[in-house]
Amino acid sequence: MNIAIIGYGYWGPNLVRNFSAVANCKVKYVIDARTERLETVKKAYPNIEVNVLADLAMADTSVDALVIATPVFAHYALAKQALSSGKHVLIEKPMTATVAEAEELIELAKRNNLLLMVDHTFLYTGAIKKMKELIDANDLGGIQYFDSTRINLGLFQPDVNVLWDLAPHDISILLYLINSKPYSVNATGISHTNNGIENIAYLTVNYTNGFIAHFSCSWTSPVKLRTLLVGGDKKMVVFNDLEPSEKIRVYDTGYNFRTDEEKKRLLVDYRTGDVFIPKLEMKEALLGMANDFITCIQTKGVPVSNAELGLEVIKILEAAQQSIKQNGKEIKL
Amino acid sequence: MNIAIIGYGYWGPNLVRNFSAVANCKVKYVIDARTERLETVKKAYPNIEVNVLADLAMADTSVDALVIATPVFAHYALAKQALSSGKHVLIEKPMTATVAEAEELIELAKRNNLLLMVDHTFLYTGAIKKMKELIDANDLGGIQYFDSTRINLGLFQPDVNVLWDLAPHDISILLYLINSKPYSVNATGISHTNNGIENIAYLTVNYTNGFIAHFSCSWTSPVKLRTLLVGGDKKMVVFNDLEPSEKIRVYDTGYNFRTDEEKKRLLVDYRTGDVFIPKLEMKEALLGMANDFITCIQTKGVPVSNAELGLEVIKILEAAQQSIKQNGKEIKL
Amino acid sequence: MNIAIIGYGYWGPNLVRNFSAVANCKVKYVIDARTERLETVKKAYPNIEVNVLADLAMADTSVDALVIATPVFAHYALAKQALSSGKHVLIEKPMTATVAEAEELIELAKRNNLLLMVDHTFLYTGAIKKMKELIDANDLGGIQYFDSTRINLGLFQPDVNVLWDLAPHDISILLYLINSKPYSVNATGISHTNNGIENIAYLTVNYTNGFIAHFSCSWTSPVKLRTLLVGGDKKMVVFNDLEPSEKIRVYDTGYNFRTDEEKKRLLVDYRTGDVFIPKLEMKEALLGMANDFITCIQTKGVPVSNAELGLEVIKILEAAQQSIKQNGKEIKL
Amino acid sequence: MNIAIIGYGYWGPNLVRNFSAVANCKVKYVIDARTERLETVKKAYPNIEVNVLADLAMADTSVDALVIATPVFAHYALAKQALSSGKHVLIEKPMTATVAEAEELIELAKRNNLLLMVDHTFLYTGAIKKMKELIDANDLGGIQYFDSTRINLGLFQPDVNVLWDLAPHDISILLYLINSKPYSVNATGISHTNNGIENIAYLTVNYTNGFIAHFSCSWTSPVKLRTLLVGGDKKMVVFNDLEPSEKIRVYDTGYNFRTDEEKKRLLVDYRTGDVFIPKLEMKEALLGMANDFITCIQTKGVPVSNAELGLEVIKILEAAQQSIKQNGKEIKL
Repeated sequence: MNIAIIGYGYWGPNLVRNFSAVANCKVKYVIDARTERLETVKKAYPNIEVNVLADLAMADTSVDALVIATPVFAHYALAKQALSSGKHVLIEKPMTATVAEAEELIELAKRNNLLLMVDHTFLYTGAIKKMKELIDANDLGGIQYFDSTRINLGLFQPDVNVLWDLAPHDISILLYLINSKPYSVNATGISHTNNGIENIAYLTVNYTNGFIAHFSCSWTSPVKLRTLLVGGDKKMVVFNDLEPSEKIRVYDTGYNFRTDEEKKRLLVDYRTGDVFIPKLEMKEALLGMANDFITCIQTKGVPVSNAELGLEVIKILEAAQQSIKQNGKEIKL
Repeated sequence: MNIAIIGYGYWGPNLVRNFSAVANCKVKYVIDARTERLETVKKAYPNIEVNVLADLAMADTSVDALVIATPVFAHYALAKQALSSGKHVLIEKPMTATVAEAEELIELAKRNNLLLMVDHTFLYTGAIKKMKELIDANDLGGIQYFDSTRINLGLFQPDVNVLWDLAPHDISILLYLINSKPYSVNATGISHTNNGIENIAYLTVNYTNGFIAHFSCSWTSPVKLRTLLVGGDKKMVVFNDLEPSEKIRVYDTGYNFRTDEEKKRLLVDYRTGDVFIPKLEMKEALLGMANDFITCIQTKGVPVSNAELGLEVIKILEAAQQSIKQNGKEIKL
Repeated sequence: MNIAIIGYGYWGPNLVRNFSAVANCKVKYVIDARTERLETVKKAYPNIEVNVLADLAMADTSVDALVIATPVFAHYALAKQALSSGKHVLIEKPMTATVAEAEELIELAKRNNLLLMVDHTFLYTGAIKKMKELIDANDLGGIQYFDSTRINLGLFQPDVNVLWDLAPHDISILLYLINSKPYSVNATGISHTNNGIENIAYLTVNYTNGFIAHFSCSWTSPVKLRTLLVGGDKKMVVFNDLEPSEKIRVYDTGYNFRTDEEKKRLLVDYRTGDVFIPKLEMKEALLGMANDFITCIQTKGVPVSNAELGLEVIKILEAAQQSIKQNGKEIKL
Repeated sequence: MNIAIIGYGYWGPNLVRNFSAVANCKVKYVIDARTERLETVKKAYPNIEVNVLADLAMADTSVDALVIATPVFAHYALAKQALSSGKHVLIEKPMTATVAEAEELIELAKRNNLLLMVDHTFLYTGAIKKMKELIDANDLGGIQYFDSTRINLGLFQPDVNVLWDLAPHDISILLYLINSKPYSVNATGISHTNNGIENIAYLTVNYTNGFIAHFSCSWTSPVKLRTLLVGGDKKMVVFNDLEPSEKIRVYDTGYNFRTDEEKKRLLVDYRTGDVFIPKLEMKEALLGMANDFITCIQTKGVPVSNAELGLEVIKILEAAQQSIKQNGKEIKL
């Protein structure tokens, strides 16, 4: 199977390296508008063809699939062209700049019987796989909340706010881990530059079944935090992505309550117990993602990080943006 | 000066111990409806008079001031009675259950020429004093954000939600550190018990001048966090109250931006530098608060933790509750 | 049962409080040469008799046992007098200033059919009990090393060096956890004051069976560390006493080796796995110690922290001092 | 300037990459006995000549310098051949297997007017440079102790013990930071394999002037620690190499003492103050080392990590080994 990778920026070298390691997969083209980036490709991979335009790769019938790793605004047009040219498509997160674009691409892929997939790499990490396993085995009990913090002194993006930049990771994790449907969002935020692009933002995703998710994102924190809490009514999990090996901690912590009907009072029993730090699979997540893409093309399977999940991420981001611009108003999904 | 302390629960012993250590101040009465609590007082302080009712202390003309440390719902009635009886009054945080009550008490104190004060103890800690000092000296530059996390496996309160229970600490710190007026609030939250009292809640306090404050509170976290970030355009500070001695870290971290007019692009320079951990004053905060109360009675001064600040806290809490009940709608202050 | 406590310094109040909480035990006397210390006792415990001399308590036939909490140099004489007067004796660690004194006291107690015990409180903590449990259940496999670090900016003692001050805790833990007999010691150290009393010292305790123990002690570290590593050939444990609740971490970490006879090469397989943080018993250790003392008097049992263990601690300390003074020479035990 | 690199194991790729980045320096040869390693070189650097034997490079008059990155036992013979062939030589740490070998090489280099240097990379890190700067500026006052811990679950080396494997880093730092001459060593350790090679070892380096250094090394710890404490009589520094950015902490911590002549008592004043975390230079240390080597060849200068320092490291290691084998006996240097 031959693939072409469009966009050779920060993430591009990782994509080339990992797709080159997938069995039966060959990176035939790398496309980037910047010739100096193409030089870098040539030096490291003399056998890969490079080009400043995608047209050749789109037209090459030996190319089975395109990987789109450009800035977000270019995702839709490139993916549309590729799907129309009969290529399977993998898009870097976030999938598109609007819900409408994402929906159109999904429709087009279905019509043309092609695989469309979004690269939410985190879903292939040992940590998130372990959390999924714990939740699916009901080890945590009924899940009650999801609380994510992703802050640091980060690169201000010129076109999208901090939620579009940082939250897709955690939103995709939320959607992957939690089966129920989100109902609405509220978001607040602030821009400290003069371009109206928020560098700090807070997002609540509401559900109708007693579950809540919250996201805190910032490009202007002096400390770097990458923390996720998931609480069930039996156990709770903390995922700290900055820990080199002990990323997941499972707390045998919880409470039970009952109502004393006579005294009309809530009675709560608290429980704290052992903490368990499972050893995690250490394989590179991006390789797992690349394998999932190639395998699902061959087997017509549904990848873990599928386009429908990618679309849900965009729905939440788009609604969050509306909420911020309307002073935190609840936006139904 | 003689004082009476009403309420001898969790905080009562600390109040008795510290007021006993203030020069020229004598704890004459301790009042509590529970006789077993009064036994404890008698054993530790044989010279203090105890009573199940406050009436005697209210009527005793040798009593100059009352300290009210009962559950919140009783604050207003007791404070009103005390102020009407010509006593100065200190109330534990939060001041009252409603804004209207707090405003009435402030009015009454003014009319009767008495000191009314609220015990927001954190304002007397070495850590918050140091932060105030840094901000007032303009070491941090213009303050841009305030972000507080206060979560743990905590006691579910029977009458107030997690914001009323945990946020008063950080809201009082916000009001003390930041001079500008908050404009509105948005809040979201969830109750996992069947009584409609939120055990997880998120609060954004909005300002009109490019500053934002956010609070994250939970009684259902497996980990305990007590963290506050304050970011200025010159430096940023992290306050971690769980650190035994290194509670405050000052980061020489920031960024500058300008707009490239030709390319319509934002250009950002990032800066990370030294970190400084100042040695903090280690005196007990509650003693500082007790001294402030007694001194301000004598000098007719304005205490750091004054009633107007206490009222602002209640305004934010009341608005937050409205916002939660209206699905995160912005509530103007 | 009536007891007298001799010495009301730093540790004295804890002893009085805990022995007062033991069933069927009454603290009848507190003795201290400093009258201002006795004032403190009278205020807190009006029913306890106080005295600057121990003679009255020694002579009082209603007193069953003496607890000696004076500086080390006074332990021997007081314990000897008490045992000769027919009293059971508990001595604070370290037991005595010399091995000879400790042996004499043990002999005397045996002859007079009295209980002699040393207070190595750590043996009654939830953390050390858990470690003992893990080792006795063979969860760690064969124990291979013990490595203790106990450093901070500490009070320079006027009469004993840093090993006598800090190491008794960890040496008692070593002797409690490990069944085999130590063979010899090597120690090095330095005095930065002009009195020849080491403020930094390092101690190796050698065994003949492939086990080694090492202790690092300092009064002149800018950071406080209280860490103990115990490694078995199946699992390893880290005890960090500064962690508020997660004091014990059990690592499923280890290695297996075999020798490739042909190539004369060592082949090693490494294994890292889950980490487990057991919930520990949170009862006050000193109360457990006090109960053990009183119970063993009544039942003629052998306490966990018995005099023979206390003597072994002194043997190691005395040998360590000899080794330091002879430039680290091995001293056989 | 042309160089040849002999040995392309774990460290080899880093050497090739960094020497390739030095101005006016070309890596002409890479030598390794394993053809599969040479394949790797060819793929990454098609222009570098590769060979299983060093003879060609030794004979090539266009080659100015050799970098020796083989196992330790081969260092001496290769360096001798290179120096005899008129090449400058850089040897990976530890310099040689014996003091005699190191001394002979130094002598030979001097005679042939060639640069002989040892790669103690740590001396070129931002952290150690900052410590050197603090010490040279007398910010710490008179240095009193040096305490290093370097433990983890590490690769058992087949030919050298844990001190020879791990301690050279910290011994080179000691020698670089501290100007005075060590006087003697004591070392203890244990082998848990059946080959007599210690996997845990403790080393004290004694000085005659009131300074002491201690090293704790292990291949069998479940936790990884890389900590160095350096205490002066004014301030103390902690270097934690596992911290991603805050590697150095300067504590304004100390004590003063005087002797009360009348009471023959030591009086000590303790001081704890601010902590300062300096921002460190982030350049790759190995590049600094490579530059130092090339520059000193050109300028006939003395590199920071010079052969005399490398020899002193070997002297300490050799003495340590003797001490371990003689049960911790003091070995004079």
